Amino acid sequence: MASDFNPSRRKAPSIQDVARVAGVSRTTVSFVVNNVPNTNIPHDTQERVWAAVKELGWRPNAMARGLRMQQSHLIGIISDQITTSPHAGRILQGAQDAAWAHSKMLLVVNTSDNLDIEHAALQMMLERQVEGLIYATMYHRQVLPPPALAQVPAILVDCYLADRSLASVVPDEVQGGRVATDLLLRKGHRRIGFINKVGPLPAMFGRLEGYKQALAAYGVPFDPGYVRAGTVIAQEGYCLALELLQLPERPSALFCYNDSMAMGAYDAARQLGLAIPGDVAIVGFDNQELIAAQLRPPLTTVELPHYEMGQWAVQYLLGRLNDTQPRLLQHSVACQLIERDSA
Amino acid sequence: MASDFNPSRRKAPSIQDVARVAGVSRTTVSFVVNNVPNTNIPHDTQERVWAAVKELGWRPNAMARGLRMQQSHLIGIISDQITTSPHAGRILQGAQDAAWAHSKMLLVVNTSDNLDIEHAALQMMLERQVEGLIYATMYHRQVLPPPALAQVPAILVDCYLADRSLASVVPDEVQGGRVATDLLLRKGHRRIGFINKVGPLPAMFGRLEGYKQALAAYGVPFDPGYVRAGTVIAQEGYCLALELLQLPERPSALFCYNDSMAMGAYDAARQLGLAIPGDVAIVGFDNQELIAAQLRPPLTTVELPHYEMGQWAVQYLLGRLNDTQPRLLQHSVACQLIERDSA
Repeated sequence: MASDFNPSRRKAPSIQDVARVAGVSRTTVSFVVNNVPNTNIPHDTQERVWAAVKELGWRPNAMARGLRMQQSHLIGIISDQITTSPHAGRILQGAQDAAWAHSKMLLVVNTSDNLDIEHAALQMMLERQVEGLIYATMYHRQVLPPPALAQVPAILVDCYLADRSLASVVPDEVQGGRVATDLLLRKGHRRIGFINKVGPLPAMFGRLEGYKQALAAYGVPFDPGYVRAGTVIAQEGYCLALELLQLPERPSALFCYNDSMAMGAYDAARQLGLAIPGDVAIVGFDNQELIAAQLRPPLTTVELPHYEMGQWAVQYLLGRLNDTQPRLLQHSVACQLIERDSA
Repeated sequence: MASDFNPSRRKAPSIQDVARVAGVSRTTVSFVVNNVPNTNIPHDTQERVWAAVKELGWRPNAMARGLRMQQSHLIGIISDQITTSPHAGRILQGAQDAAWAHSKMLLVVNTSDNLDIEHAALQMMLERQVEGLIYATMYHRQVLPPPALAQVPAILVDCYLADRSLASVVPDEVQGGRVATDLLLRKGHRRIGFINKVGPLPAMFGRLEGYKQALAAYGVPFDPGYVRAGTVIAQEGYCLALELLQLPERPSALFCYNDSMAMGAYDAARQLGLAIPGDVAIVGFDNQELIAAQLRPPLTTVELPHYEMGQWAVQYLLGRLNDTQPRLLQHSVACQLIERDSA
C-alpha cells in the first residue's frame, strides 16, 4: 500500500474515466453496467467495460443519487461452501464486482450444508431487507432451497430446482466437454480416453455428452471401452489412466473430469515412460491454478465460469428489480478452454 | 438436501444440545461462545464446543433476545483477495462461525487492492453501522489501512501496522518453521535443506528463524549452504531442489516454503531417482489440500491458521464491545503440523 495514500485528496473516478479506459462511449458504459437488454454489445466489449469499472473502482453517480434510506442496498448470498472452496470463491468476486457497480454490498453466509443455518440465514437476510438473494452451491447440482427464498428476487447459482420454478445460472457442461474433446480431435487424436466421475451429476452426464458430440462431429465412433469413471481424486485418476494407457489400442489422449484426476494421469504416464503430450496428450477440467499452472508440463484444461455466473446473477437480480427481463430465466454459461502445454 | 425438510417443524437447538454434543457443561459452552476471559478452558475443549455450535447451527438465546433494531448486528470484512484465494477463504469461514454464534452477519468486500474501492467500502460499511471491522489480507504482511477503520472496533487479520496501533492476529511463522524442521530432526535427519521465499516478508524471516531454532535445539550447526530462496512456484522449487539434492553432502530432507515449491521438489527427487521419503524427506507449508493431499506420496506440511484467525478476530471484536479485553492486542496463532507420508 503506497504511503502517500490520502483518500480525501483522491478524485473519484467518473463514467468518462471508465469509458476512456475501456475505449468505449459513455453510453456503452451505461448500457453495460445497467444491464440494459437488447443492446447487442459484444461480449468482449462488456468484459472491457467491467474490467475498467473494477480497475478504477467506479460507482455510478445515478446509483449514488438513488441511495435512499428505505433501500438496504444489500444483496444476500447463501452458499453451501463456496467461499471456502478453492475455485468457487470466484462466484463471490463476480457477484461483488457487479454489485459494486450499483452501490450494492453483499451479505454472505456459508451454511456448511446445515439446514438450520440456511433457514436462519434466510430469515436474518429478509429481516435486513435484502433487495435480492443468491443461493449458490460448490458444484453444479439440483437443490431444494427454503421456499421463503422467493420472497424477494432470487436466483440460483451453479444449481437448479427440479421444476425450474426459480431462475438459475449454471455452467454449460455439454459445451465444456465438447470444447475439451474438440481440441484433442483438432490436434489429430482419434483414440481419446475419457476419465469421468461416478455419480448422477449434471457435470458427469453433460461432459460425457459433449465428448460424444465432439467425436460425432469428426466422424469418430463412440467406444465405451475408452471411458472410465471414478471418484474425483488424483489417486483414482492415476489408476484409471494406468488402465486406459495399457489397452492394446492405447489412447493417444486423455480427457479427465477434473484437474486432480489429470494430476494422477500425469503420474500414470510418467510411470509408463510416456511423454506428455508427445506420447499422450492430457486435458483436465476446472482450471485449478494451483494444480493446472504448476504441473510439468502445465496442464491444458477447461475453466468453469464461476466469476461470470456470480456477475450474471447480480445483473439478473438488478434487472428484475427494474422488471426488464423475464422472471424464470434458466441461463447456462460457456466454459473456456485454457491452453497450456499438455495437449 | 433431504426432501423431508420442513423448517417450521424443526426444533431449534438449545444450549443443552450443544453441551451434550460437545460433552461439556452449559456453563462451559457459555464461557466459550461469549469469549469470557481467564476461564482457562483447554484449547481442544473450546474446539469441541465450536464444532458442536457449528454442527447444530445453534445461536444463543441471550443474543437473540438482544436483537434490537438499533443494533445492526453486522460485522464488516474488507479484504484484498481472501475470498478468492484458494486457502484463505477459511478466514471468512472462521469469522462467520464465530459471528453466527452471536447472531451477527458478515458484510464482505474484496478490494482487489484497489484503494478507491477500499475507501468506499469502508464508508458504506460505516454508514450501515457495522459493529466491528475486520481488515484481512491474502498473505501475512504490513499494511496501511484507511484511518477511518478505527471509528469502530477493528482488527487486522494476517497483517499488521508498523506502529501496532491497531489490534492484529497473525500466524506464528517462527513456530511454523520450527515445527516443520523439528519433525525432520526427530526422524533422524541432520542435513536439512530449506527452500525459502525471496522478499522481505514476515513468513520468510520467521520460518527461517524457526528452522534455525529447531537446528540449534538439536545442536546441529546452521549451514547457509543448505538454504536457497526463490519465487513461490513449483518450477522454482524444482530448480532449487535439484541444486540442493546434487550437493556433495546431499541433504536427506527438504523443508519447502510452501506446497507448490514442495510439488516442484517432488519432480526434482523423481528426476534424480530419489524415493520420497526413503532417500529424501520433504515437508511443505500451507496445507493446500488440492496439492498436499493429492501428491504421491501425500505431503506432510504445516497448516496456516486461517480459520482460527478469522474466528479469533470476531471473538476479539465481540469481547471489545463488552470491554473485557485490552484494546491493542497483538496475537499470533500457532501453525499445525499435518503429517502425511512424505517425511
